[in-house]
Amino acid sequence: MLDTTDFLTSLQTVVGEAHVLTADDQVAGFLIDVRRRYEGDALCIVEPGSTAEVSDVVRLCARHRIPITPIGGNTGLVGSAAVVARKSESGEIIKGIGLSMRRMNRIREISPLAETITVEAGCVLQSIQDAAEAEDMQFPLSLSAEGSCQIGGNIATNAGGTAALRFGVTRNLVLGLEVVLPSGEIISRLSGLRKNNTGYDLKQLFIGSEGTLGIITAAVLRIFPRPLSRETALVAVDSVDAGLKILRRMKAAFGERVTAAEITEADYMRLVLEQMQGTRLPFEALPTWSLLLEVSDTREDTDLAALMQETLVKALEDELAQDVVIAQNDRQAEEFWFLRHAVSDAIRHSGPNMSHDSSVPLMCQEDYVEMTRERILEAFPDSRPLYVGHLGDGNMHLVVLFAQGRFPHPDDYNKVSGELDQIIDDVVSELQGGVTAEHGIGLSYRARLARAVGPEEIAIMRGIKRVFDPDNIMNPGKLFLGD
Amino acid sequence: MLDTTDFLTSLQTVVGEAHVLTADDQVAGFLIDVRRRYEGDALCIVEPGSTAEVSDVVRLCARHRIPITPIGGNTGLVGSAAVVARKSESGEIIKGIGLSMRRMNRIREISPLAETITVEAGCVLQSIQDAAEAEDMQFPLSLSAEGSCQIGGNIATNAGGTAALRFGVTRNLVLGLEVVLPSGEIISRLSGLRKNNTGYDLKQLFIGSEGTLGIITAAVLRIFPRPLSRETALVAVDSVDAGLKILRRMKAAFGERVTAAEITEADYMRLVLEQMQGTRLPFEALPTWSLLLEVSDTREDTDLAALMQETLVKALEDELAQDVVIAQNDRQAEEFWFLRHAVSDAIRHSGPNMSHDSSVPLMCQEDYVEMTRERILEAFPDSRPLYVGHLGDGNMHLVVLFAQGRFPHPDDYNKVSGELDQIIDDVVSELQGGVTAEHGIGLSYRARLARAVGPEEIAIMRGIKRVFDPDNIMNPGKLFLGD
Repeated sequence: MLDTTDFLTSLQTVVGEAHVLTADDQVAGFLIDVRRRYEGDALCIVEPGSTAEVSDVVRLCARHRIPITPIGGNTGLVGSAAVVARKSESGEIIKGIGLSMRRMNRIREISPLAETITVEAGCVLQSIQDAAEAEDMQFPLSLSAEGSCQIGGNIATNAGGTAALRFGVTRNLVLGLEVVLPSGEIISRLSGLRKNNTGYDLKQLFIGSEGTLGIITAAVLRIFPRPLSRETALVAVDSVDAGLKILRRMKAAFGERVTAAEITEADYMRLVLEQMQGTRLPFEALPTWSLLLEVSDTREDTDLAALMQETLVKALEDELAQDVVIAQNDRQAEEFWFLRHAVSDAIRHSGPNMSHDSSVPLMCQEDYVEMTRERILEAFPDSRPLYVGHLGDGNMHLVVLFAQGRFPHPDDYNKVSGELDQIIDDVVSELQGGVTAEHGIGLSYRARLARAVGPEEIAIMRGIKRVFDPDNIMNPGKLFLGD
Repeated sequence: MLDTTDFLTSLQTVVGEAHVLTADDQVAGFLIDVRRRYEGDALCIVEPGSTAEVSDVVRLCARHRIPITPIGGNTGLVGSAAVVARKSESGEIIKGIGLSMRRMNRIREISPLAETITVEAGCVLQSIQDAAEAEDMQFPLSLSAEGSCQIGGNIATNAGGTAALRFGVTRNLVLGLEVVLPSGEIISRLSGLRKNNTGYDLKQLFIGSEGTLGIITAAVLRIFPRPLSRETALVAVDSVDAGLKILRRMKAAFGERVTAAEITEADYMRLVLEQMQGTRLPFEALPTWSLLLEVSDTREDTDLAALMQETLVKALEDELAQDVVIAQNDRQAEEFWFLRHAVSDAIRHSGPNMSHDSSVPLMCQEDYVEMTRERILEAFPDSRPLYVGHLGDGNMHLVVLFAQGRFPHPDDYNKVSGELDQIIDDVVSELQGGVTAEHGIGLSYRARLARAVGPEEIAIMRGIKRVFDPDNIMNPGKLFLGD
């Protein structure tokens, strides 16, 4: 039987007394998730200052079979970093520790020549973007939580964001990892190799593993030349497919200089315009879909604007586009982007809602919208399905909004939420999509994962988990039901 | 005890009599590898015509625990597709089957709009390039065996090639796979999702697994807009580091339009000029390194040439470059490329040689060359170490050439080859590189893999192998020693 006091003392010996947090006011911020859906229950929060300390903490936990949940910026949307207590087979409550990576926030190295940056897991995403920019480079990963999310969490959840169209998801930006295995063993592959075929590529498993296989302590990431010119346009289209055709023409004209293609449906745009002060749409009428296009170039002296105009005017002539406005200056470009970024704030005070993050094949996005809208409105005629998508990634976010006061009790909300999950899962399955494009599984989506990939793949995933973590101490209870 | 005749009859029932090959003249081509290092010994070669047939063949083999080695274009350099017989624990010789994917060569679908092509594993790489080009798109994977290698093999070995600088290795081009597991179960994920975070990304394990986890039967791949303009230059530099600085400037100027950066050392270039009819170098003197640079754009009307001239003239002025020649037309560009591509032919008749495929961090390539050359010449003063590299990938190929007749007996060759491996592995380890950048492990590099990644990672890899293939029927004996 573990003596908690002894265990806490041992932890203090490893990381220092100040870095084992137990007081309610110290741990509270780590134990409630950003959506306030999960309240954790931990022995303590430990804040190691180095990879060696992480290793020692893990060895100590492994010896006593104490579960470990790594915590980054705590901005995840599915409860991956929730420190939940478990019941053992004998009914005993087993509490774990939360391992905050906050103190491991050094940028170890940056090399514009090698186009790499080596960072510790606790680095806030924005600090990495800034460090790259200071060297006239860019780290392209960008998402709304960038001011507080940590790169370790971005990697562990394979974060997506708005730059995925051009630069791919986090997986495509990681050249190497340093990890601590559940045994405490450190594996360090931080030399930034671009080609390496020595056996199975284990780092690919850690990317997106949500802390279930080990702890990511550092990473070497790709950086790119910084763009020096940029053009932004807003295009009115009457279907997703028309938007895709325009995107195809933009890519043929600009190649990889197309850096954003975000699409917002009329009803969601209307909500943004109603809710957000000072917003206006530069079109005469509200279009069925508003498509935001951005092109950028590492060169300063380009004719991006002329070519964009030419391509989009041709789209107007061919009746693919209903209207086109090219931003005349940076301020107008920012206004266009604000219309897109404001969707989260617009929804916040509009009523209870359920947010979905499916992806489908590019050509099925129109079907996804039509099928989900029809079935959702049939089941819940009082709901308002709102769509905004990363058009080039097939990642069509769907928020289902209800009137204030619709759910007097959390159980009412949960019941409707579960029924919605099933409706959306069925559509995703029919269209061969994925139920979570960028948010991950965590606690929220475990049943949906099981439904989506089927028993054979779940068995393989559990088998892989056991290879790394036979005692199931690494973030247990996540990804898989019944753990 | 398995009755071979019954087993062959069962196979015939699945794929048809004509597609179970046993006659010596039918199977010989499948059983000798391209470097003539391994001679296989198979029960038969089976040529399934569909994924369902692959599944049935695998189920049949699984029932009798008959090993299966998938065979693509048989162009691999490390024996991954060699059908080697094994001894069981009781000393019995166990022969397996070779599973040729040749007949599964359909292009199932191509969509320029979705920028995807769906192909069966037996498609020859060049046929995929051609299919993309017919739609005004490109499939960028390119390597010298492209006329005969098959995409299934490219994926199973995570092939690299000359386009990796811009488009990444095969892993970066695969959006989804259809595979047959060692149980016969088919897992099909061919909808081409660009973002999908539903649990561990199992397809990443299949990429580079060299047939040890299951059989890749089809894939959905990324295609890109086809380039319409292109400029090529040859630059004389006196060090790899000077070449890297020029590459950095090219990337700052052109961004991702830099599509090749290949570098050849003087002694290798001299051999090419001596051995290959009609070659000439456009410089007055043979430079220490010749750097081939290519930029290309999806636009037709660009000023690529002017900007390339400006960037390279500046490099001359700053004494990074010793000489610069920009190709004046397509014919001259082809001549420059021929100097690069001719390295394989130039070596072929020059004497016995050992070829290495290490990668090191970009900034360590100069060290890699100096350290290996010094140690190799110390150990073998009569050898001639020759270098040619994918500069932007850190993948510096090294061929160690000896005089004709140096090794009277294969054992002499093998002894020197083993000593060379150790010298090079030590350097790679000191520089935190990888012993194989793009060729893979197969039979040839198993000891080197074990040395390179250490016992913990080998144990994890073996554990993963067991999860997929508990009876070890999928390409046994590859990757791991002693299987």
